[in-house]
Amino acid sequence: MLMKEIFASRALRMKASEIRELLKLLDQPGILSFAGGIPDPALFPAKAFATAFEQALSRGQASQSLQYSVSEGYPPLKEWIVDRMARLGITCTPDNILITSGSQQALDYLGKLFLSPGDTALVTGPTYLGALAAFNAYEPRYDQLSLEGNRTAESYQKGADAADSRVKFAYLSADFANPTGLTVSAEARARLLDLAEDLGCAVIEDSAYQDLRYEGEPVAPILAMELAQKGSLEDCRTVYCGSFSKTLSPGLRVGWVVAAKPVIAQMVLIKQAADLHSATVNQMAVNTVARQIFDSHVETVRSAYKARRDAMLAALERHMPPGVQWTRPEGGMFVWLTLPGGVDSAELLARSLETVKVAFVPGQAFFSDGSGANTLRLSFSVLDETDIEEGIARLARLISDGLSANAATRQQAAQMV
Amino acid sequence: MLMKEIFASRALRMKASEIRELLKLLDQPGILSFAGGIPDPALFPAKAFATAFEQALSRGQASQSLQYSVSEGYPPLKEWIVDRMARLGITCTPDNILITSGSQQALDYLGKLFLSPGDTALVTGPTYLGALAAFNAYEPRYDQLSLEGNRTAESYQKGADAADSRVKFAYLSADFANPTGLTVSAEARARLLDLAEDLGCAVIEDSAYQDLRYEGEPVAPILAMELAQKGSLEDCRTVYCGSFSKTLSPGLRVGWVVAAKPVIAQMVLIKQAADLHSATVNQMAVNTVARQIFDSHVETVRSAYKARRDAMLAALERHMPPGVQWTRPEGGMFVWLTLPGGVDSAELLARSLETVKVAFVPGQAFFSDGSGANTLRLSFSVLDETDIEEGIARLARLISDGLSANAATRQQAAQMV
Repeated sequence: MLMKEIFASRALRMKASEIRELLKLLDQPGILSFAGGIPDPALFPAKAFATAFEQALSRGQASQSLQYSVSEGYPPLKEWIVDRMARLGITCTPDNILITSGSQQALDYLGKLFLSPGDTALVTGPTYLGALAAFNAYEPRYDQLSLEGNRTAESYQKGADAADSRVKFAYLSADFANPTGLTVSAEARARLLDLAEDLGCAVIEDSAYQDLRYEGEPVAPILAMELAQKGSLEDCRTVYCGSFSKTLSPGLRVGWVVAAKPVIAQMVLIKQAADLHSATVNQMAVNTVARQIFDSHVETVRSAYKARRDAMLAALERHMPPGVQWTRPEGGMFVWLTLPGGVDSAELLARSLETVKVAFVPGQAFFSDGSGANTLRLSFSVLDETDIEEGIARLARLISDGLSANAATRQQAAQMV
Repeated sequence: MLMKEIFASRALRMKASEIRELLKLLDQPGILSFAGGIPDPALFPAKAFATAFEQALSRGQASQSLQYSVSEGYPPLKEWIVDRMARLGITCTPDNILITSGSQQALDYLGKLFLSPGDTALVTGPTYLGALAAFNAYEPRYDQLSLEGNRTAESYQKGADAADSRVKFAYLSADFANPTGLTVSAEARARLLDLAEDLGCAVIEDSAYQDLRYEGEPVAPILAMELAQKGSLEDCRTVYCGSFSKTLSPGLRVGWVVAAKPVIAQMVLIKQAADLHSATVNQMAVNTVARQIFDSHVETVRSAYKARRDAMLAALERHMPPGVQWTRPEGGMFVWLTLPGGVDSAELLARSLETVKVAFVPGQAFFSDGSGANTLRLSFSVLDETDIEEGIARLARLISDGLSANAATRQQAAQMV
């Protein structure tokens, strides 16, 4: 192709995201889908947004809401975020905040800010595949971040040195991570901060799911822990990425970043050059709705998702055959399954869609090193409890049948030897 | 600084945009500003948008408008754009279109798509400074695009070869360009297409101001000309960037790109990784409003801006001293002034804000090579005719006084020799 010949190498590396391509196929009737990591639209505070947009587009405000605005973000919304962050132990000023078009955009800008080709990014295995997609554009080298403390700073450093590379950041979602649903303990967070200090790298804390806790005590954000240690946000290496997508609405594309001022100042320049600013009216509407109902609305969302998580964990317990393992998340939207070795979850998906009409996301795409073929992600955020029970029962039957067939084949093979 | 040490080199190159920093200072009372290249908010179709958002956020539609959506863009809006493009001589399908968050985002993505560090981008001198900011993130080499046909393909190629570089695209705004207001003739467009063919590079056609023509006959878009030559959009090298910012509203951040399918497919992946999609509800509202009132609203906008352009050209004629030159745009928002050599427009701005309280944008930032210190950009889109007359009269007085003072100094200097 004429044009493809002149694409930059980074562009040629980009591949279609398995999840997003999948989502396009899920409109088929009769499919029970655990695939999309999307909020239940029935929970959107639609009335509150209708009123907030009406207000922002009224005679007195339309000349502002429909006009260009500053790259930094809508000041009253930044003020609300300052208050919210303070409640999480992160004392900051509006100059420590940039409003982004969802936290996905923050990941793209952080890739642009930190990564030169070949630089090292530490990511967990598995990790959020949208983060890998965002970082891939900047052609990093990946190394696997261990949160169990069984790798020393020297081990990462040695790997980077051998590749003539430099570790620029560790990226993780510390609360109810996509895709595992797991939460990083306070001890592991403290170890990670020590590691970042030793490596001289940044920490990118993706807090997209932080508000969705259904049980247990909240763990302080990594940035809050670092701030408590160091006393000033300006000395902190952690960049906190927040989002309204999982609490109020993903379609409005409003998220934010909190970090030391030099990081924010640079990200403002990146945003100015990349899209000028996030849509003004959306920021105004989110500000209004957040001030009116954020806490009560999050309670509503939590209570709905908690019931679905409980239903999914109960159904897994009830139906899954021995040998299948899964996480027991304290919040978020996901449960992560590990199948007995040898079962390929991508093949399972093809069979599942064809026979039992259940969808999920094969796990391999969530690993920077291509491992994890026997893992898969289940989301419990959209289906009701009855459908969750039914879908898990069907999926469990399919897995059981596959395992028995495998066992029969193995037995047969053994007999033939 | 701790964090700055680990920024990527591309980030450290980014500098604050003169224009946007300036805009922050213009809230002072009493300033007559020709600086901001922004639409007049009094012309926003606020009522139509209020109704369109109300509809999109109604019970039946909120589950879609507040939800995640596909990276490609809202299908009905793409359909409207297909029709609109057809009227401009560009026959395309929805697969040739990507919805972006303003055309600024298209420029960022096109930089990401085409530019590796050191690749050559051809830009006019002056050019849109937001394009330079977007491309700068991908560390290109610039060469000056001449539209008068006084440079051969060999001359560009020789320059690129000498720098061990490859020409990836020519970027230009062909209609009422920011900052000059000038339109590229059909002959020059045809020459540019030949040049791109010889160089094997793309053409990026920034059409942000295309709808704002106040006199004369429209010139066919470069993409329409290329399509007429080649017969199929899939063989075309031109990437067309459109925007609703100058016609309906900039604050909603909705623009679009039209190009051959492999270009769009790649840009969809880039967008997916960078911000997932542009805000769903904004695309729905723009679709509704565009279908209802686009043509009639553009007429309203044109008639208002035409009167202001006429007022500015008349005031310049009336007040400017000999030696000052300016463009006579057939559309858009800008007039471009060239001051007699030796007058520095940045110094003039400082004096102007202090003494006559008139703002404009010094021209140097619009040149990739740092030239143009004696040029400046005036926007006529926001002030009414009386203020335009008053502002130009004041600015002309300041320039005249400066020129007389300079002449006196020169005379004095000559006498002292």
